[in-house]
Amino acid sequence: MTNAVETLRWGGDHVEFIDQRRLPQRIEYVHCHDAAEVATAIRDMVVRGAPAIGCAAAYGIALEALRGTRDFGAAFAALRASRPTAVNLYWALDRMQRLIDARPDDLPAALAAEAQAIQAEDLEINRAIGRHGATLVADGARIMTYCNAGALATAGHGTALGVIRSARDAGKHVSVLANETRPYLQGARLTAWELVQENIPVTLITDNMAGHFMRTGQVDLVVVGTDRVAANGDVANKIGTYGLAVLAARHNIPFYVAAPVPTFDLSIADGDAIPIEERSAEEVTGYGDVRWAPEGVNVAHPAFDVTPAELVTALITDKGVIERPDAEKIRRLLGKA
Amino acid sequence: MTNAVETLRWGGDHVEFIDQRRLPQRIEYVHCHDAAEVATAIRDMVVRGAPAIGCAAAYGIALEALRGTRDFGAAFAALRASRPTAVNLYWALDRMQRLIDARPDDLPAALAAEAQAIQAEDLEINRAIGRHGATLVADGARIMTYCNAGALATAGHGTALGVIRSARDAGKHVSVLANETRPYLQGARLTAWELVQENIPVTLITDNMAGHFMRTGQVDLVVVGTDRVAANGDVANKIGTYGLAVLAARHNIPFYVAAPVPTFDLSIADGDAIPIEERSAEEVTGYGDVRWAPEGVNVAHPAFDVTPAELVTALITDKGVIERPDAEKIRRLLGKA
Repeated sequence: MTNAVETLRWGGDHVEFIDQRRLPQRIEYVHCHDAAEVATAIRDMVVRGAPAIGCAAAYGIALEALRGTRDFGAAFAALRASRPTAVNLYWALDRMQRLIDARPDDLPAALAAEAQAIQAEDLEINRAIGRHGATLVADGARIMTYCNAGALATAGHGTALGVIRSARDAGKHVSVLANETRPYLQGARLTAWELVQENIPVTLITDNMAGHFMRTGQVDLVVVGTDRVAANGDVANKIGTYGLAVLAARHNIPFYVAAPVPTFDLSIADGDAIPIEERSAEEVTGYGDVRWAPEGVNVAHPAFDVTPAELVTALITDKGVIERPDAEKIRRLLGKA
Repeated sequence: MTNAVETLRWGGDHVEFIDQRRLPQRIEYVHCHDAAEVATAIRDMVVRGAPAIGCAAAYGIALEALRGTRDFGAAFAALRASRPTAVNLYWALDRMQRLIDARPDDLPAALAAEAQAIQAEDLEINRAIGRHGATLVADGARIMTYCNAGALATAGHGTALGVIRSARDAGKHVSVLANETRPYLQGARLTAWELVQENIPVTLITDNMAGHFMRTGQVDLVVVGTDRVAANGDVANKIGTYGLAVLAARHNIPFYVAAPVPTFDLSIADGDAIPIEERSAEEVTGYGDVRWAPEGVNVAHPAFDVTPAELVTALITDKGVIERPDAEKIRRLLGKA
């Protein structure tokens, strides 16, 4: 199975990101030549999704080395400040820092190779998540997903969409209900596009329809991605995830979270300590160049929310499935890693 | 207190509706001269909101009489077919039919007077709902609302927003969290606009943020409108209402439904028998002239959902408040009417 979508492309002296602000209307790549450009691309959501942000940040450091930078302080600072919620960003940067600290002979080549390794490993992680997750999906399953935890959010295959792709590849006939995911519409623009391209049946709904479809018996399971999992299994993900989890619990619908190991943050005891990014009002008062809200209205825009572990039926990781997650089970699984 | 917004204006030989498709960018009135034009205005959501739809339909019949129509069959059929969920439409048409059956001397004048009476009574109903509802609102309350159950959805004052207006008029300092209400954005466009005009503090959020604000303790009560209340207290309202009710119940936040007596439908035992309108895919795949979803995606668009009575803390009617509604309490209250 090839990847229809190339989210990140390494160009030797630059990195290319498919411009996710333009999808699905246009397929364009943004070229970044240094860490500052990569940080801007992350902040502006040219590239988004926790695993993809981690890969992108790693390339940002590699590019700095190739440009002859000796002091990486500013590069790390710019990348760390780009978006606060996804822990993969810090995980990837820490990994690059460790390599710098090890003083390899050819630092630029070593950092470029490390960034490529992070990207390749992420693809493998997603395939492993897909394998584990597919065992939880019955033939004929009607699957609800949220935001985009697909190939576009990762190095390829996807986390939540990786589960769906792997189930399909295992011969299961699945269909997907995709929530549009306001305000940035990652579900409508990205998830729907990925699934249409692969001929996986997908029905688009607005976020506020999810409860209706659950109540009327049209959803067999929910699978979403995550930007950070706390030590106790609380999960930060795109704003609205929490509401879906509450609805799923009411209807006894399994609520699965696809979580690569680099997304776990054992330094944080529970979800309340996860920093929640506040994004701009303009993303809420309209879309693109269209504004529909009146002048004078206040706006709130938390970009993520926290779903407590008690609402998570299972975490689907690349190391295996953690049912009814808690701190003990998570430590045990990560200890195996 | 005057009404800042004139939702419907009777013109003697035509009726004018503020064009709610254009708000808040433009304030324009659509003029309708017969029942077919009124039916189109209802279907296209020039005029929307259950009580306003009832008033509009009544004017549609009055206009037919003024035009010299003798057989009202086609007019009633067109209006009845315009939108299926709000019962106020049928309630108002039945009232006009009874007047026709009574054969008054000057039928056109009698029907025009009846439509104006329906409009005037609706305003009084909303003021009564406001009075009863305001007693449930504490000083300083942070109130979440949904869609637009405001002056624009009624003859004036509003049902859910009537509660908020009356609380404010009673000297209470309230603030409002308004959900944008995809796909038609009645919250972002209409509710936010009404509240900004009256200097009631309002913060706009996307629908999927509601759970986050409840979980983080920023909502004291929820108040919404309704398009039809079944005999057992189940409530049909704009799609997404059910999800809010589930979230409110999880967080022990009172969930109030402002329900004029004409919105009750005792002929329907429970909410599952309420017809749910399916609207066009185009409203989901984008907004206005902007399309963001990919070609080839399926779309579902139920325009309403059903909230079971068990999730309703109280129905706020013009005849009084029904706490923890059930069939017995509803029959008793309506019997008093």
